[in-house]
Amino acid sequence: MRNFFYPKSVAIFGVSDSPTNLGRIIVENLDRFSFPGQVYPIGVSGGFIGKKQIFRSLEEVDDTPELAVLLIPAKYVPGTLESCGKKGVGSIVLESSGFSELSDESKVAEEEILAIARRYGIRFVGPNCFGIVNMDNGLILPFFELQPNLVQKGGTSLISQSGGVLFDISMLSSHEKIGFNKLISVGNKLMTDENDCLEYLITDDNTKVICLYLESFSNGRRFMSLASSTDKPIILLKANRSEAGRQIAKFHTAALTGDDAVADAAMRQVGVHRVRSLREMVDLIKVFRQPPMPGTRLAIISRSGGHGVLAADAVERYGLKLSKFSDEFFDFVKTGKVNVIRTTNPLDVGDIYDAQFFKEVVRRAYDESDVDGVMFANTFNAEEDAESMLELVQYTRDARPASTKPIIFCMPSSRYKWMHMQNTPDYPIFGDVDDAILALARSYRHSRHVAAMERTNLRWRDTPRKESGAVTKRSLMEPRAIFDLFRAYDIPVADYAVAKDTAGVLAAAEQIGYPVALKIASPEVLHKTEQGGVKLGLADPESLTDALSAMKADAHIVQKMSAPGHEAIIGAKLDAEFGHLVLFGLGGIFAELFRDTAIRVTPIDKKTAMAMIDEIRGAAMFKGFRGRPPADIEALAQVLMNVSRLLVEHPEITFIDINPIIVFNENQGCIVVDAKAEHETAKP
Amino acid sequence: MRNFFYPKSVAIFGVSDSPTNLGRIIVENLDRFSFPGQVYPIGVSGGFIGKKQIFRSLEEVDDTPELAVLLIPAKYVPGTLESCGKKGVGSIVLESSGFSELSDESKVAEEEILAIARRYGIRFVGPNCFGIVNMDNGLILPFFELQPNLVQKGGTSLISQSGGVLFDISMLSSHEKIGFNKLISVGNKLMTDENDCLEYLITDDNTKVICLYLESFSNGRRFMSLASSTDKPIILLKANRSEAGRQIAKFHTAALTGDDAVADAAMRQVGVHRVRSLREMVDLIKVFRQPPMPGTRLAIISRSGGHGVLAADAVERYGLKLSKFSDEFFDFVKTGKVNVIRTTNPLDVGDIYDAQFFKEVVRRAYDESDVDGVMFANTFNAEEDAESMLELVQYTRDARPASTKPIIFCMPSSRYKWMHMQNTPDYPIFGDVDDAILALARSYRHSRHVAAMERTNLRWRDTPRKESGAVTKRSLMEPRAIFDLFRAYDIPVADYAVAKDTAGVLAAAEQIGYPVALKIASPEVLHKTEQGGVKLGLADPESLTDALSAMKADAHIVQKMSAPGHEAIIGAKLDAEFGHLVLFGLGGIFAELFRDTAIRVTPIDKKTAMAMIDEIRGAAMFKGFRGRPPADIEALAQVLMNVSRLLVEHPEITFIDINPIIVFNENQGCIVVDAKAEHETAKP
Repeated sequence: MRNFFYPKSVAIFGVSDSPTNLGRIIVENLDRFSFPGQVYPIGVSGGFIGKKQIFRSLEEVDDTPELAVLLIPAKYVPGTLESCGKKGVGSIVLESSGFSELSDESKVAEEEILAIARRYGIRFVGPNCFGIVNMDNGLILPFFELQPNLVQKGGTSLISQSGGVLFDISMLSSHEKIGFNKLISVGNKLMTDENDCLEYLITDDNTKVICLYLESFSNGRRFMSLASSTDKPIILLKANRSEAGRQIAKFHTAALTGDDAVADAAMRQVGVHRVRSLREMVDLIKVFRQPPMPGTRLAIISRSGGHGVLAADAVERYGLKLSKFSDEFFDFVKTGKVNVIRTTNPLDVGDIYDAQFFKEVVRRAYDESDVDGVMFANTFNAEEDAESMLELVQYTRDARPASTKPIIFCMPSSRYKWMHMQNTPDYPIFGDVDDAILALARSYRHSRHVAAMERTNLRWRDTPRKESGAVTKRSLMEPRAIFDLFRAYDIPVADYAVAKDTAGVLAAAEQIGYPVALKIASPEVLHKTEQGGVKLGLADPESLTDALSAMKADAHIVQKMSAPGHEAIIGAKLDAEFGHLVLFGLGGIFAELFRDTAIRVTPIDKKTAMAMIDEIRGAAMFKGFRGRPPADIEALAQVLMNVSRLLVEHPEITFIDINPIIVFNENQGCIVVDAKAEHETAKP
Repeated sequence: MRNFFYPKSVAIFGVSDSPTNLGRIIVENLDRFSFPGQVYPIGVSGGFIGKKQIFRSLEEVDDTPELAVLLIPAKYVPGTLESCGKKGVGSIVLESSGFSELSDESKVAEEEILAIARRYGIRFVGPNCFGIVNMDNGLILPFFELQPNLVQKGGTSLISQSGGVLFDISMLSSHEKIGFNKLISVGNKLMTDENDCLEYLITDDNTKVICLYLESFSNGRRFMSLASSTDKPIILLKANRSEAGRQIAKFHTAALTGDDAVADAAMRQVGVHRVRSLREMVDLIKVFRQPPMPGTRLAIISRSGGHGVLAADAVERYGLKLSKFSDEFFDFVKTGKVNVIRTTNPLDVGDIYDAQFFKEVVRRAYDESDVDGVMFANTFNAEEDAESMLELVQYTRDARPASTKPIIFCMPSSRYKWMHMQNTPDYPIFGDVDDAILALARSYRHSRHVAAMERTNLRWRDTPRKESGAVTKRSLMEPRAIFDLFRAYDIPVADYAVAKDTAGVLAAAEQIGYPVALKIASPEVLHKTEQGGVKLGLADPESLTDALSAMKADAHIVQKMSAPGHEAIIGAKLDAEFGHLVLFGLGGIFAELFRDTAIRVTPIDKKTAMAMIDEIRGAAMFKGFRGRPPADIEALAQVLMNVSRLLVEHPEITFIDINPIIVFNENQGCIVVDAKAEHETAKP
């Protein structure tokens, strides 16, 4: 992808000298941002833009441009691609629209341009995109006007599936003082998708923070692998929270794993910060301009008591803690000659108007050993106050290179003035105390995630899923096949046998030992309990015979009754975006009514399995709740891992519902007493 | 309170001609905002501010000012109050600090000034406050500089317990284009609290929306009564979410009713919109400048596909719906001569640059019968675009007087430009699509609440609680006393008797009928089950005798075993801020682990009781979940109401835990099988 961002020469197709021509804006953008490479405007009518000649065709150009931008009607795209291919142009930004976003018929046109590109070894981005921005070298390819004084250079890069959102972010950067590095509009993602761009940005030294706006995942597992391979913060705004997958289906697991819940779980699993609005994205960008908060202890200095109280509330709400300041710190504060200084955190410095003092308070708070981060909340009005705040922020910014903790400023009342100031520093300024502390809590989450990855080697790695290849249909598995498969993966199943007649049933029960459960063996009887297809706790041959005569079927399962214990459910699903996932929850009504479940994309290791059990709110039930003995969580975690292993080696499995698995007391294991599953098989 | 806002004459104490004098700023504020009444600056050193004379004392003034502002050292406050009293000044804004906020000893000084005020019939606001602002008449009493061009007049009024927050809101009004009407800083709330101010603002014709920033409720029940008496939107930022009341206590209900959860429930009960940040408050102010959204159906017009997708997500997230546009509407849209118009909602008008067309689209969307509100999401860059947007907003604002639905604008990328525009209209403009739709959802909630109040006469009314008067202690009630009290209020209790010896126990069981439960009768044994103080399901005299011999106590309760049913809990608590409240939840671990409970302040009516049952997530259990018969919700609601009635008539009750109440199938009632309670009694 490097050629897309650092080309030595660029050809722009679709340029004319008309004032309304959009290609012309690209040429002007490159000029305004002093792009140092060669620029070749190309347009059938020729002419000039300023002193720059518009070539009538690529053939007229005496050079092989490393990159071409196409902003021409869709019907001319194939021919132009051909001429680029012949000339040896390897990288193309295809901004033209009129493809699959317009109508389904246009998919044919997409196939055609894909074929041409492959023939010539061309790589393209788009179509239907806003192009690329690289602030490093002034490569500004969007067809809307950008001004150097409104866009700042910095360390954040963005991949966007919407041109409008890309446009917004570039505008926001101007008044939120966010410096951007690279912007990529991926459009229809025909040949180059978010993962290709993400892979490049992870290796790009000038990109410190990566943002994405996506409406779909091209390949969720590749995305996870990439995200898991880097310590750079990744901030994702995933729109289009389709709930198509969430119909009430024949599998409990299906109802509990809506597409959006899965995306949420997958992103958390690999430490991606998912946000729900551009505002939240901007807040995270701001906080990640600073070192991640290494712990939970926040020092708050406020010039208004009210904001101090709001900040303390937010600290509790978002799971941070208030630092304890040392006596030496307060001794210094008391030199500030103020009416009222309570020796508290949040520290109220409302009566002081002294930039020098504020600098020293911030510096000393930063140096305190019990402090993992500092927030200074300011309210100001007068011009001189704004100047002294500017001084304080600049001082802090300049002191920052050596820093290991975040220092952030929050100016609830000041943004209007702030934005008018000429020399606004490139430093995070928040407008709202609550938003600022939420961002800090996420900053802490990031450093915790990175530390966990380093400490425990917890990076998620994809295991390639075998492709089945053939056209397949989905069908329910025979209960016996499920149980046999489970046993092959050390998933304990209550003893069972399948029998076809009364004699067989009785013999099986005799061998297994009473009490037993009797079930219809057919996979078609889905909700066996509700349809009278299950009888539990049959204590002797008589009651077994009675039950059998009331339950007509071709074959029956006789199964050992489990001792009582905690009921849990384990589910698995083949998700369209993320592949196999496992789900864990309490049994009974908990999962269904309270959605108290944990989801992970496979494969999972033991630590992850333990974390899944720990994460549900009902986990307290397993830990000796109200004097009951604790449950065998170890064994349960082992089963979760074994299910994950089974899924990796059996790509044909599309659903599993283990409901319930009975978990016994510590060191006494657990056992599956009922399960159903669906798999793909080749069509006959 | 009217005198505080519309005085004919004002005296300002503490003024000098020094450039750093704060009282002087007040005099200048009044001048800048053309306050039409008489202004008398008073300060011991005399002198002039411009041409205005500073009087050396109130006695020198030839008039009786209707209002006085005191910004003088605390030690001079009593004397100045005396002289105001003698002169006949009835209303005083006491901005001076140095009272109870400084130290506990200063409470004595507060008692003193209260006594003086009462002696002279003076009403004061403060101390330790930023004063009052009335944009109606230019009464600007804060001691910080305000500029007329930065503060707009409008219909929103604010009561604030923090000067800093008041200051911020007045600054935010400048760049968020929010017009304010009245601002009141209540400081230490010594004589005038938020309720006094709220009562006035409810009657004030120029106040359309009321905002409050509070760190404590002076009297929660009075606040609720006032809030319930008006249809004006009330927006509350309640900080200081103390969880002091949430220790693990001897009552289950105590653990489930932290102060903040109670405040949340109380505010919802009377339709107050609680927010957690200034940003959220500002968003709500913006949306309430428009008519409340009468239904859930939103029309979205977007100039960026991405923002349309984000908006559709937000509509689902916040419980709104997307309107269906008519064919006629789309027919008009298609005249817009655009490349791609998909006939969808959100409607993407990205390729159109025509203010006239936008006006017409907004107007037609507004007129659609399936539309309850319209949002126009815009992204723009060029100056001419900004101008055409301004034209659109102004057109919409001018068309608004006749409107019955909200029309709001969201300009994600535009706020920087927007703020630079001179003639920015007084009209809600949001920065983020998600925030805007959340605000609309709350707007809908408001109209739903108002409609419910009107339709069902659901306004909450306080019932006066009898005062016990005497110094009291709290103690546990005897089980028999609790059960007797319950029966007096038609709360069904399982048959029981108290017996002191084996013969008595057996006789009681004989009369009640087996099976029975045996419990220790002492109120001191709190967690009876865990301490072996309860034996259930005793089927005959032998097992009863066995149980009795294993359970040593002075007295026992013999109680009829209930038939099985759904277990629920009902709690009651005397809350320090809101008085008596009732709590409802599922039994077992649900309330404890999942906090799935409903809380209301008493009194409650039948509708409210039904709503409580309906509101918990586990309510599905009562409604025929998984083929089970539905439970007798009617009977349960009746018990909740009866508990409320009991509490109203028994102010001495401080806690009740009914745990569990067994709810039977429809029309079969419910029954309390165990309960404990605490009450206040006079100290011996």
